[in-house]
Amino acid sequence: MSISIKQIAKDLNLAVSTVSKALRDSYEISEETKRMVLEYARKVNYIPNPYAGSLTNRTTRNIAVVVPEVADTFFSNAINGIDSVAQVRGYHVIVYLTHESSEREVSILNEFRGGRVDGVLISVAGGADKNIAIHKALAEHLPVIFFDRICEAVETAKVVTDDFTAAYNATIHLISRGCRKIVMLAPAPQLSITEQRKGGFKKAFEDSGLKWHDYHFIACSEDEAESRETIRNVLKRTRKVDGIVASVEKLAMQAYAICNEQKIVIPKDVKVIAFSNIQIAPLLAPPLTTIEQPAFEMGKTAATLLFGALAKKINLKKERVTIPSVLRERESTAG
Amino acid sequence: MSISIKQIAKDLNLAVSTVSKALRDSYEISEETKRMVLEYARKVNYIPNPYAGSLTNRTTRNIAVVVPEVADTFFSNAINGIDSVAQVRGYHVIVYLTHESSEREVSILNEFRGGRVDGVLISVAGGADKNIAIHKALAEHLPVIFFDRICEAVETAKVVTDDFTAAYNATIHLISRGCRKIVMLAPAPQLSITEQRKGGFKKAFEDSGLKWHDYHFIACSEDEAESRETIRNVLKRTRKVDGIVASVEKLAMQAYAICNEQKIVIPKDVKVIAFSNIQIAPLLAPPLTTIEQPAFEMGKTAATLLFGALAKKINLKKERVTIPSVLRERESTAG
Repeated sequence: MSISIKQIAKDLNLAVSTVSKALRDSYEISEETKRMVLEYARKVNYIPNPYAGSLTNRTTRNIAVVVPEVADTFFSNAINGIDSVAQVRGYHVIVYLTHESSEREVSILNEFRGGRVDGVLISVAGGADKNIAIHKALAEHLPVIFFDRICEAVETAKVVTDDFTAAYNATIHLISRGCRKIVMLAPAPQLSITEQRKGGFKKAFEDSGLKWHDYHFIACSEDEAESRETIRNVLKRTRKVDGIVASVEKLAMQAYAICNEQKIVIPKDVKVIAFSNIQIAPLLAPPLTTIEQPAFEMGKTAATLLFGALAKKINLKKERVTIPSVLRERESTAG
Repeated sequence: MSISIKQIAKDLNLAVSTVSKALRDSYEISEETKRMVLEYARKVNYIPNPYAGSLTNRTTRNIAVVVPEVADTFFSNAINGIDSVAQVRGYHVIVYLTHESSEREVSILNEFRGGRVDGVLISVAGGADKNIAIHKALAEHLPVIFFDRICEAVETAKVVTDDFTAAYNATIHLISRGCRKIVMLAPAPQLSITEQRKGGFKKAFEDSGLKWHDYHFIACSEDEAESRETIRNVLKRTRKVDGIVASVEKLAMQAYAICNEQKIVIPKDVKVIAFSNIQIAPLLAPPLTTIEQPAFEMGKTAATLLFGALAKKINLKKERVTIPSVLRERESTAG
């Protein structure tokens, strides 16, 4: 059985009503007390009764998370971050997958307008035609919050990492290790994150006096076989590439596999740095230098903003949170 | 824009009505034609209009997938398999996470009974009290199908892999490589898969004339820090362990990390084999020998059974599908 509110109140030496209000995010309770109660509730795995709230407030107690995929550790960690906030408030997190299809995304977004969920956290697929669907949802007072992959033009809360700076730092890191012929492998070029990362990548060339050519930026297909073929060609064709910045985890893994296959030695022949949250980066051969995105924190922050909006305590239009990424140096970029 | 039914009919040289019926899984169309149409529809990324169907049939066009987590490649691959079937039929796959909590699982299952989804595919969390919730759902004609982690006592379709045999083979593989002091690392012991794998593991001891002690089976905590401490103790304490069968991916990764930390060399000091679908197993240091579960196939099969049940063409009670796992030998168990 789950621990009760009464028990939490007793353990924390608070009134039952205080705990209850803190869990409902009441304005009557101080932020400090709320944090204490929420953290304790999470620790003891407190499970609220979702029905109690649903009957009174006429809410679904569901929040939707719309992401391109779950096989990427960024998304699985972000989902866990979202869940860590939703769980103590008695909400279910429901994950919808777009598989990078804008049409499916729009179809999913339209479905939410029937009152199926109380709010939406979305990391968008490539393609631009989702703005209308999001505007419609917002117009109908369904809160929508972007995390990681955003639509800049839509006026609502956005939780991002410092993609431009992180890509800049990653590229400077490779240059400082002696790389001169660096390529960036990236997915769908129209994505906000790709644009930012390409910008930072390019800026590092300029600031280091390296000549920029468009072929330094390589857009890879969603199709794995095609993407591998592209990477294979890049690495074989030139024998000139000495550094790779992988903009997403799976492209780093593909680059590793191709290097393996082609007997290209990392980091001797080519150095690799990747935007990735893969926990086992240190266990790879060789250990992978990563730009670790604050995935869990980003998810947690986005969910917290959503609950703030549901409690009518924040105006989502004004919110933009940037949480920095961290460069973790490992053997794949050793000098 | 998505390709239309008309275009599919034209491309396949079929009547529009045939394609339409094939996509709706009509009994009037042969299995062969259906397969051809579905495969082509998937290839060209056909997106049906979910509302058209919903209005006529009064269905939600949603199927729920209930899993403990998405950070494990088994589940992310299984979800992709489910999605591959659902997509061409115009269904959305919605993922619910239980984080191994039976209480959350029951709360999620109860929610489905309000007509939120057309069917449920579930891989259960540890703990036994979900049977009642599943029975209630089934009694209300909501189809529920188990995949991977099942409740044996509940009479409905089950899609599993050959856990007993796979664990037996994994253990025999270690023994044939000279291991004599083998431990199995496993999660929640009450899970169907854990029970089966423990059974196969134990049987391999018996058949090889190795003495069985209960300490050969090590139940690890869901909490990562606790679990790592357990593994650290096992490897340090004894200096006798020369082989590890990891029953789930994350325990294999933890064992790798502890070996790294303790300067225990794989495969020289200890050999490791794991139930895992991790794509990058060949890129680990050293490459990991895996028992690869047919995750995508299992998901696909479970979803196909569900659509069969929705079309009233199969009686779920009678269905049990076992898809074998494959042992992929790599350096972590080299002799």
